[in-house]
Amino acid sequence: MARNSKKVAAAETAESMALKQREISVSEFFLKNRHLLGFDSPRKALLTTVKEAVDNSLDACEEAGILPEIGVTIQQTAEDRFRVSITDNGPGIVRQQIPKIFAKLLYGSKFHRLRMSRGQQGIGISAAGMYGQLTTGTSTRIFSKTKGNKKAHRMEVQIDTRANKPTILVDEEVDWIPTFHPTREDGKPGKPIEHKHGTCVSIEMEAAYVRGRLSVDEYIKQCAIVNPHLQLHYSLALKPKEGGKPGAGSNGDPVSSFKFQVSYSRAVTKLPPPPAEIKPHPHGVELGVLMQMLKDSTSRTLRGALSTDFSRVSDKSASEICGRAKLNPKANPTRIAHQESEALFKAIQETKLMRPPTDCLAPIGETAIVAGLKKEIEADFYTAVTRDPEVYRGNPFQIEVGIAYAKPDPKQEIGAEDPVRVMRFANRVPLLYQAGACAVSEAVTGVNWKAYGLNQPRGGLPIGPMVILVHMASVWVPFTSESKEAIAHYPEIIKEMVYGLQECGRQLSVYLSRRRREAEAARKRNYIELYIPHLALGLKQILDLDDRQEKTIVRKLSTMLEKTHLDV
Amino acid sequence: MARNSKKVAAAETAESMALKQREISVSEFFLKNRHLLGFDSPRKALLTTVKEAVDNSLDACEEAGILPEIGVTIQQTAEDRFRVSITDNGPGIVRQQIPKIFAKLLYGSKFHRLRMSRGQQGIGISAAGMYGQLTTGTSTRIFSKTKGNKKAHRMEVQIDTRANKPTILVDEEVDWIPTFHPTREDGKPGKPIEHKHGTCVSIEMEAAYVRGRLSVDEYIKQCAIVNPHLQLHYSLALKPKEGGKPGAGSNGDPVSSFKFQVSYSRAVTKLPPPPAEIKPHPHGVELGVLMQMLKDSTSRTLRGALSTDFSRVSDKSASEICGRAKLNPKANPTRIAHQESEALFKAIQETKLMRPPTDCLAPIGETAIVAGLKKEIEADFYTAVTRDPEVYRGNPFQIEVGIAYAKPDPKQEIGAEDPVRVMRFANRVPLLYQAGACAVSEAVTGVNWKAYGLNQPRGGLPIGPMVILVHMASVWVPFTSESKEAIAHYPEIIKEMVYGLQECGRQLSVYLSRRRREAEAARKRNYIELYIPHLALGLKQILDLDDRQEKTIVRKLSTMLEKTHLDV
Repeated sequence: MARNSKKVAAAETAESMALKQREISVSEFFLKNRHLLGFDSPRKALLTTVKEAVDNSLDACEEAGILPEIGVTIQQTAEDRFRVSITDNGPGIVRQQIPKIFAKLLYGSKFHRLRMSRGQQGIGISAAGMYGQLTTGTSTRIFSKTKGNKKAHRMEVQIDTRANKPTILVDEEVDWIPTFHPTREDGKPGKPIEHKHGTCVSIEMEAAYVRGRLSVDEYIKQCAIVNPHLQLHYSLALKPKEGGKPGAGSNGDPVSSFKFQVSYSRAVTKLPPPPAEIKPHPHGVELGVLMQMLKDSTSRTLRGALSTDFSRVSDKSASEICGRAKLNPKANPTRIAHQESEALFKAIQETKLMRPPTDCLAPIGETAIVAGLKKEIEADFYTAVTRDPEVYRGNPFQIEVGIAYAKPDPKQEIGAEDPVRVMRFANRVPLLYQAGACAVSEAVTGVNWKAYGLNQPRGGLPIGPMVILVHMASVWVPFTSESKEAIAHYPEIIKEMVYGLQECGRQLSVYLSRRRREAEAARKRNYIELYIPHLALGLKQILDLDDRQEKTIVRKLSTMLEKTHLDV
Repeated sequence: MARNSKKVAAAETAESMALKQREISVSEFFLKNRHLLGFDSPRKALLTTVKEAVDNSLDACEEAGILPEIGVTIQQTAEDRFRVSITDNGPGIVRQQIPKIFAKLLYGSKFHRLRMSRGQQGIGISAAGMYGQLTTGTSTRIFSKTKGNKKAHRMEVQIDTRANKPTILVDEEVDWIPTFHPTREDGKPGKPIEHKHGTCVSIEMEAAYVRGRLSVDEYIKQCAIVNPHLQLHYSLALKPKEGGKPGAGSNGDPVSSFKFQVSYSRAVTKLPPPPAEIKPHPHGVELGVLMQMLKDSTSRTLRGALSTDFSRVSDKSASEICGRAKLNPKANPTRIAHQESEALFKAIQETKLMRPPTDCLAPIGETAIVAGLKKEIEADFYTAVTRDPEVYRGNPFQIEVGIAYAKPDPKQEIGAEDPVRVMRFANRVPLLYQAGACAVSEAVTGVNWKAYGLNQPRGGLPIGPMVILVHMASVWVPFTSESKEAIAHYPEIIKEMVYGLQECGRQLSVYLSRRRREAEAARKRNYIELYIPHLALGLKQILDLDDRQEKTIVRKLSTMLEKTHLDV
């Protein structure tokens, strides 16, 4: 029996407890809580890794003004192990930044700014590497080539979880250029595509590949729907289930028993407009943040600080705020006392200001949503709504909703007897897991779909052959956990979603009523048309008409019926 | 218009992007993501603060072997501001530790050990202080007196969020002893209770007080149910809604328009047995952790490291593992290569070991659960089940389920037509928010309650006048977010919950059938008893009997009926 392993704790004192207090590194924290990062099951680990890497690639390409081309390769290396590699044609990463970007949690360029992007936390890709390291002991492999350089950098890094710092295992210059292997529509390989710059990250991890709604395949498909400017090549190679070389392990040659390859071509060759970076809007700033911002200000006067460090504060508004707070506009902002900043905070709330600028948002747009839905989902009726921007906690955001409604169809894609399918997106990233915890689900179930002609069990999703797409674009999407799978329940956000859904619902309702009317009219018409000849025959016998007259009656009755139908 | 506030991003390069990369402090991260910590609404902020402080007090008292006495005081200081103060009779905190415990995220004594406790992350109370600072600019006030000291420490601290470090504003020695103000059952104040040591933390914050299922009141009530050894005094003072001194703000004297006070006395004067601290079980350790543990080992041999650093590895098992991995048991554990540790990892999985020790768990127990339910919920039928310990990811855990079933009753407490009420607990802490995201909800809806005599809509909670209590005790409860409101969906955990619920369900089913049988029998009997006299009268007339004979017939028939009932 191991020493100490059954030690029952003795009563502690303040002093003995003090000795046990320790700092917890953020890596240690998330290693133990890896379900918070989306690594709670082997199946989800695969998806999360692809998602984080693709998000980064898309962000980097768009920021550099490059039309994104991305390769996703998943290769099974042992029964429960996969190597995931994502290559992009982005601007590349300078050598010094590579270790921190891929092997340090809470490090990145997107957290400290207010600008719409997929990544925001500086956790994702390092977390994927940490998970690979945890489950297979291997390191994260990176190739990166920047525009100016002839050579590429090859690095292998791990996280020192105690210190949340990268450990560099390999660091060398190599000849490498990002190369993509497209698959033609007939399934045959196309000509390889080479780019002058880009990055490739590759991680080996314990994982499982499962098809279906929560799979990498689905993620990539949805990604293509909301990113029509993206060109993506996806390849999956699985080992035979039984009888693979026993013990080949991660070093054996993967035997491809199953290989799946697909390329998603871009539908548009224009990047979405680059969203602007904004400053905090004063109405969304909390007292504590206001105090910190004043302390940090480089302006010499309070009025200057207000108009420079915040958005939508003109010199006039700044003076108005100072007046209302009874503060000298020329005071040094770094020397505002607690009482004074409380007064300032109150004055800001009471001053009318323009709403935050919204050019920081790049919505998908109604046309693109309908086009995206059409590309991937066969249906009879499509509609989409892009709502005007709104604000929660000072953060501008915008909600978009799309609907695709099919005729009831035995095909599984959209079943008539099942609840509608909800596709959720945040800043153009598909959200697959944790639907139940998401504001989108609350909004969809909160709408009265019966009013728009659908069945809906109490408190549930409506029933019907329908897909609902909801997209939230924001400079800061509030997720319910670090794994970014569900949007938090801010009332302002849910309200906008409900409005968007209702707008689409009304259009659906018009379509459904028209379809019902048409179906009803067609039914009546068929029914009467069937009897017109009999009616004519009867009249012919009663009134003793000839064949020509009978035909005329049939024609006239038919015309009359048709006219009536138009008024139905 | 502010300079730069509408700047549209220019195309970036690898070099320009590198300049923007920055480290993100964990405080900054959670300040921006404060909904992850349970501070997404003013109402929830109040509950989260009380919860984190009470959890800490209970943990400290139990670790020090002290019967806990806790005072919770909530005082409204302005329309949207409250001062929350929690006092305990715990061992106190030594001066040097106070700032870090109350003003540094990810700092604590509970993260790096495997032992059942309420707190585990080292985030909660500092997060509450950070939220107070953010919304009111005020600091966290602490009084603490340890056993040996004559004087107490008074400190005021804030978090420097950029650095995640405490800033000390006040640090002095004062005369202070923890004092509690009990409320007698008749609502009148009892004699104040003084203790020799303890801690008081007080935070002012933007908050809202709302009664109901998600309130502080409910939390405290449920806390008393599962902590029968706790004595708690709760007092709430609200300001008048309208017509309070205008502008009195946080410095005005709170005008108590509404005051609510209650004391929960302890039901038992014995502390729960102190749970033991355990070492990691080899079967739950991942390859990456194994490698780290070997690197850190102070043992001189691999065999020694295996038997000392892990639980349930005897010298014999250690030798067996080394043999299977083809490694020298006398090898230096800090020099095991990657390939070798993979072999070791495999060998560990293949070696049969005793399950992890379970004295690290302190379940509530079936008797205490029933007693707790009886104390707080009026019902006809109570039952409880404490399952045997199980293991997920190497962590021992134990599930307990309790049920209270009332006769249908117009009282709101347990409604007959509504879904049953589910009370969730983790390590004796009530979980109020995020029921939908919790493994408990999945388990409860996953059980087929129709089999036990209850109605249940498809995929929903069963219907009935019933309360279900589910408790998970573990050395590490996997929560779905840092706010610790819902248990993550590990299959092993859900399975155990389902078994516990089914066990209780079967007992409920026996009770319900018996009640139904009894009701049916009573109905029959009443019915027949009604006709016995008429029957006897008829017989009397037909057979020409006298009154005595008639009475005998009535008596005999009644006796016969009674016998028949017993066989129903």
